[in-house]
Amino acid sequence: MRGDYGTAFPALRDAAGKVWQDYTRHAFVEGLRAGSLPRKAFLGYLVQDYIFLIHFSRAWALGVTKAETLEEMRACAATVEALVNHEIALHLRTCAEAGLSEADLFAAEEHPANLAYTRYVLDAGHSGDFLDLLAALAPCVLGYGEIGARLLPELRPDHPYADWIATYGGPGYQQVCRAAGALLDGAIARRLGPDPAATPGWARLCRHFTTATRLEVGFWEMGMAARPLAPADPAA
Amino acid sequence: MRGDYGTAFPALRDAAGKVWQDYTRHAFVEGLRAGSLPRKAFLGYLVQDYIFLIHFSRAWALGVTKAETLEEMRACAATVEALVNHEIALHLRTCAEAGLSEADLFAAEEHPANLAYTRYVLDAGHSGDFLDLLAALAPCVLGYGEIGARLLPELRPDHPYADWIATYGGPGYQQVCRAAGALLDGAIARRLGPDPAATPGWARLCRHFTTATRLEVGFWEMGMAARPLAPADPAA
Amino acid sequence: MRGDYGTAFPALRDAAGKVWQDYTRHAFVEGLRAGSLPRKAFLGYLVQDYIFLIHFSRAWALGVTKAETLEEMRACAATVEALVNHEIALHLRTCAEAGLSEADLFAAEEHPANLAYTRYVLDAGHSGDFLDLLAALAPCVLGYGEIGARLLPELRPDHPYADWIATYGGPGYQQVCRAAGALLDGAIARRLGPDPAATPGWARLCRHFTTATRLEVGFWEMGMAARPLAPADPAA
Amino acid sequence: MRGDYGTAFPALRDAAGKVWQDYTRHAFVEGLRAGSLPRKAFLGYLVQDYIFLIHFSRAWALGVTKAETLEEMRACAATVEALVNHEIALHLRTCAEAGLSEADLFAAEEHPANLAYTRYVLDAGHSGDFLDLLAALAPCVLGYGEIGARLLPELRPDHPYADWIATYGGPGYQQVCRAAGALLDGAIARRLGPDPAATPGWARLCRHFTTATRLEVGFWEMGMAARPLAPADPAA
Repeated sequence: MRGDYGTAFPALRDAAGKVWQDYTRHAFVEGLRAGSLPRKAFLGYLVQDYIFLIHFSRAWALGVTKAETLEEMRACAATVEALVNHEIALHLRTCAEAGLSEADLFAAEEHPANLAYTRYVLDAGHSGDFLDLLAALAPCVLGYGEIGARLLPELRPDHPYADWIATYGGPGYQQVCRAAGALLDGAIARRLGPDPAATPGWARLCRHFTTATRLEVGFWEMGMAARPLAPADPAA
Repeated sequence: MRGDYGTAFPALRDAAGKVWQDYTRHAFVEGLRAGSLPRKAFLGYLVQDYIFLIHFSRAWALGVTKAETLEEMRACAATVEALVNHEIALHLRTCAEAGLSEADLFAAEEHPANLAYTRYVLDAGHSGDFLDLLAALAPCVLGYGEIGARLLPELRPDHPYADWIATYGGPGYQQVCRAAGALLDGAIARRLGPDPAATPGWARLCRHFTTATRLEVGFWEMGMAARPLAPADPAA
Repeated sequence: MRGDYGTAFPALRDAAGKVWQDYTRHAFVEGLRAGSLPRKAFLGYLVQDYIFLIHFSRAWALGVTKAETLEEMRACAATVEALVNHEIALHLRTCAEAGLSEADLFAAEEHPANLAYTRYVLDAGHSGDFLDLLAALAPCVLGYGEIGARLLPELRPDHPYADWIATYGGPGYQQVCRAAGALLDGAIARRLGPDPAATPGWARLCRHFTTATRLEVGFWEMGMAARPLAPADPAA
Repeated sequence: MRGDYGTAFPALRDAAGKVWQDYTRHAFVEGLRAGSLPRKAFLGYLVQDYIFLIHFSRAWALGVTKAETLEEMRACAATVEALVNHEIALHLRTCAEAGLSEADLFAAEEHPANLAYTRYVLDAGHSGDFLDLLAALAPCVLGYGEIGARLLPELRPDHPYADWIATYGGPGYQQVCRAAGALLDGAIARRLGPDPAATPGWARLCRHFTTATRLEVGFWEMGMAARPLAPADPAA
């Protein structure tokens, strides 16, 4: 089952090829699905995901500065607002339930796989235009939607990762994905016209989408290899 | 009567010297106060202010990307959200009541005084850090608060610019100003310590604050000189 | 006589329409040509042009960060190097010969027309991609080339502005313009394909080119209106 | 033997603690020193270092846009020029001698450890000011100088990595390091005053310096683990 979030997303996903499977069918994901993912891996992922959300919010805010229409600005601003006020708060609650305090999160050192991902997305935005940024943002937003939609139907209530699956498979997040897909389609139509894959700009979008997908794989790898929490750099 | 929005603002305002008076006591402001401002000047100002709000929102969004704490991110994101959803919608209503359609606004050409101001603020952010950006954002936010607070007490109900004065003098906007002042104070304390005016970084903040204030004066001048609406550049 | 610096430039110039004439045939330019431009106007222009060159160098450096090929990076880096080492040094010599010390230049306050122009170009780069930046950089580089090429043939040796005309009309600067035109053509071909004016991206390039041209007109206006040197803002 | 490139560098290096040793005494470095580094590791490093130099040049160009004095602009511009014209050309020659064609380099996929490093440095610049960028640039420039200076005295002529050691230990590169150290010292004095380590801004500089050092360790790890060249992503 694959996410159906507009027109551009499936084309970018196809262009990414096998790496999209590596991401959305990663052992980490299959572990979440089966409930067999080690708790340590999940907690390690949660800690890094907190830092990820901070920088992902920054990247959506960069989108506001690069948008060309009021509608594009509003879509990005709404995402920033949702991330910094709701998602991060929700994330803190999930972490607390898992036994991780805010102090644990603040003390965590940002993993290179995490750094690589968010700073790449930010640089895609700084070096390119609004579309470059959106193409680099899309794999996270829409891939999580696709994973959630695939895992939700087989979810049993006593599943150890029920909350995670219910969040990303649920109607709220699926609506976020449809809106993000529509934002992407509209932004592409405005800038590349009715046949974007035939324009020279298309290859650049594919490159950003594929690289960001590759960095998602690295993020799951980091989760699988998570060690007990390391204290942050004392100079930080 | 002068706005009382924290500690840093009065210090920056004093450092700006006479140009702060040029801004907050400008003939345009005194015309608003007396109700004698020509309608044409007010409409010309409204049209440019619509474009200003777009770019001012972009500058606050840039703040989200440059913040160092979740609180700073949230404060900037809330301002972006308020601007792109509420203020701009309110502004469109005000324009409609004044006989200006959305088409008039979209067709308007951005005035050089407007360009100079918003692009200077954005560049203060891009070239510097979070504080540089805040120092360049402050004169608009807090100067309007100071003007509104001064004009509100003498407002009569049939005043031709009652809405404008009630908006900026009213409790909602005054609360925005206190929050912005607190954001500025906190950001300065975090980065320059307890005696910011004694640090080498202070001069740079004063320069941004003063230049932005000077560009506010240019914005009023533009309003005073407003001609009938010019159609935008046909290439745009 | 019009500059012949590649293929995209004439198309952008035609799209700009009358404002290109307003720029390249401005009273300031005709005063330079006839030698009748008041000395005060020329000195006022020189002082602001010094500040302009600083920020124009910054914009070309931004180009290095946004380029997609090593050749594009090298072309932008060479321009930065030429500006910060040679052009600015030459400019300081010209100012010194005209009786303006470095202290005069450093003490000068940046004029709003100057701010508007350079910060607009920088924001065109930050908000868009490499092409947006180049389109906003082109009117200055290539317009000066066109003006120089027109004025040089009628230059008499005792002309009061002989140096200015010889610089921009001379073979060195004309070669700079041909290289800039080739950079623009190559960058457009790479990103918009063989028929750029038929792509949705073309309108954005025209908008940047036209707005930058409009801001060049404002720069000459500032020169015409130049007052004796004002000391800079004491807070700066 | 430790590099002696001004005042701020040793203080930042001390604040980084053990990670500085992890970087400058890494097994990769000790393999270079002893000549025992596997050829495959060296070639893998060279390929990634080519991509690194591209993005490192972009970061120095960002420095030109964030500098506050003409001297700072010139120092950054000279570094960009040296990188894009000389270092990258030299690097291509070294690769060619090692049997790597330009096509091999262009076909290489950027490693996540490489992405993490350069995009972190760029984001340090975008999110902060000139000092933040310099602090993130310093570990590469000055660490290579320190390593080169340590390895050069024991270099025998038939050493397999003689060129690398002679380059970074030689007088040309050591002079680059002294200039970079002076740029850093001057930039800090200008912005943080005579006792920078006592200011609130110091912790941020240490964080950037330490994180960049940590990412240098990851870069050596990547080299040690280098596999035969992988073809790049076909969508790229």
